[in-house]
Amino acid sequence: MSSAFWQLAPTAPDAAVAAQARHHQTQLTKPPGALGQLEALAITLAAQQGRVFPQLQRPWITVFAGDHGVCEEGVSAFPQAVTAQMVANFAAGGAAINVLAQQLDATLEVVNLGTVAPLPPLAGVRDAAIMPGTANLCRTPAMTTAQCTAALAEGDAAAARAADAGSDLFIGGEMGIGNTTAAAALASALLACDPAALAGPGTGLAPAGVQHKVQVLRAALARHGTDSEPLAALASLGGLELAGMAGAFIGAAQRGIPVLVDGFIATAAALAACRLQPALRPWLHFGHRSGEPGHSRLLSALDASPLLDLGLRLGEGSGAAAAVPLLKLACALHRDMATFADAGISGA
Amino acid sequence: MSSAFWQLAPTAPDAAVAAQARHHQTQLTKPPGALGQLEALAITLAAQQGRVFPQLQRPWITVFAGDHGVCEEGVSAFPQAVTAQMVANFAAGGAAINVLAQQLDATLEVVNLGTVAPLPPLAGVRDAAIMPGTANLCRTPAMTTAQCTAALAEGDAAAARAADAGSDLFIGGEMGIGNTTAAAALASALLACDPAALAGPGTGLAPAGVQHKVQVLRAALARHGTDSEPLAALASLGGLELAGMAGAFIGAAQRGIPVLVDGFIATAAALAACRLQPALRPWLHFGHRSGEPGHSRLLSALDASPLLDLGLRLGEGSGAAAAVPLLKLACALHRDMATFADAGISGA
Repeated sequence: MSSAFWQLAPTAPDAAVAAQARHHQTQLTKPPGALGQLEALAITLAAQQGRVFPQLQRPWITVFAGDHGVCEEGVSAFPQAVTAQMVANFAAGGAAINVLAQQLDATLEVVNLGTVAPLPPLAGVRDAAIMPGTANLCRTPAMTTAQCTAALAEGDAAAARAADAGSDLFIGGEMGIGNTTAAAALASALLACDPAALAGPGTGLAPAGVQHKVQVLRAALARHGTDSEPLAALASLGGLELAGMAGAFIGAAQRGIPVLVDGFIATAAALAACRLQPALRPWLHFGHRSGEPGHSRLLSALDASPLLDLGLRLGEGSGAAAAVPLLKLACALHRDMATFADAGISGA
Repeated sequence: MSSAFWQLAPTAPDAAVAAQARHHQTQLTKPPGALGQLEALAITLAAQQGRVFPQLQRPWITVFAGDHGVCEEGVSAFPQAVTAQMVANFAAGGAAINVLAQQLDATLEVVNLGTVAPLPPLAGVRDAAIMPGTANLCRTPAMTTAQCTAALAEGDAAAARAADAGSDLFIGGEMGIGNTTAAAALASALLACDPAALAGPGTGLAPAGVQHKVQVLRAALARHGTDSEPLAALASLGGLELAGMAGAFIGAAQRGIPVLVDGFIATAAALAACRLQPALRPWLHFGHRSGEPGHSRLLSALDASPLLDLGLRLGEGSGAAAAVPLLKLACALHRDMATFADAGISGA
């Protein structure tokens, strides 16, 4: 493991560029601070992209798909077959993330890391199956270390493709029936908290279903909860798409590409990734606060201020995609507004 | 006054279309409710536009400018000359709202309802000056009823231009040094609350300046605070651009155009407009929660859930403009996502 890709720390965003961008903001024709988070966003993107005037013209979205053995415990409102059906829906262009990617002029690819139901070759879907869904994390480790490492590497490969395409933002999405359970299990181990704080309705469990999910999670934590070392926790309690996203986030940062994190599942992956590689954190933006109640706890753990709070809880990268226009607008305002000197306007 | 334009109630948004749009949402390939506020947004826009698949291709932005006599009390961090200077900046394309309008493919016009400093003819600026800034509302009514009515009518004329252009959304912005004071005065009278609940730093007052602003506001309310009848309150305590926005909001709704309200000043205008014409309320969307602290009180009074909360406090319509992409995405998702039947996906 001494040469694992995630052990290479990403370079820190450029503080000198940040200072130049911050100074430029003070000269624009508006009261200081009047553009709120859009100002900080432009400055942070400048530092990450290493240029005073950052751009957001080529967002890249990889959706990682994978199934979850824990579904046999009855933790999801939808049947497990939906994971593969939704991969086919991505290929056909009918899912929310397809519509968002088209509206944003973003590149969208899907990486199938292992569905239970077999899938034929599909346009726009990379078949990178590692196993036909994870094992039941309530009874056994979800993945072996080798399987988890392979999923991390698939994430890194997605980041490499994004870099080769000249992408200026990376979004990781996911599809996997049962994955709010895996994300809650993983985050409970990493944060050493009771799963009740992180278990929620997911795709639509009734309150009794959420209570059952808590019991399943407690059983999983009782078995694997001492795996607080991040790679062990990811393997025992995570999922293929969670590991894929974690690897992709680190790989994107290593290549100088800012990351826009989606909701509950993606934030659990980001938490694991930051534990694997703490120098990742300054490369992360957070698109939204999910309607899944446990998300706020994960955001707090990462000291994250998400851009949107619209009750979205769909996954697929959709909440991050919905925030992309704000990043674009922040870059445009930073670049195109007149300065007080240009416009001949009196200062405060 | 029996024939004043604002007394004609806008037709209610189409409940039958809303029901059809709501039913369509349940068939899309996502867990029910998983797109959160974006679902409600698509349904509401459908009802307002009277079509099951609403669109947002032609947003219209009118920025109303006007000066405020109350500036002589020292209530702003910026000198009054900045109002006219910023109108020139709008004409030159250098302000935040110019950049946003360009990014959104929105039509932008500026209506000068009365600056203190004279302005030459400027491209993209309609000279509709009613008076060279309002009178000092702390000592005398800001406007006569006739001046206020003229400003309302200029707003209605802007809505008529938007309708003639086939606009599918109306945004009203404002520029007027001192107008957080006028907005706070107007809203305090309409809500019968102490101005301390609504006075904030505006463009950047220090805490002592905010305290002084509260004293000025209390003096204004002591003089005019019994003018709770909305037209009287708007004339005594409002401003030209506040009346312009109020008239435009009502005029847009009367013409079947949904309105996206900006921040503190625009919401105070919307509150006055809803008092003038209660049937306006179902036509209003709220773009953001401003960093100006009193805005939350105004949003509550209108039972409004804004789309963004990014600490913006610039005015010009900028916070509404920043939310336009969310409306566009909501329409696209509603229109372009596959249904469960189309995609052959198992239900919950």
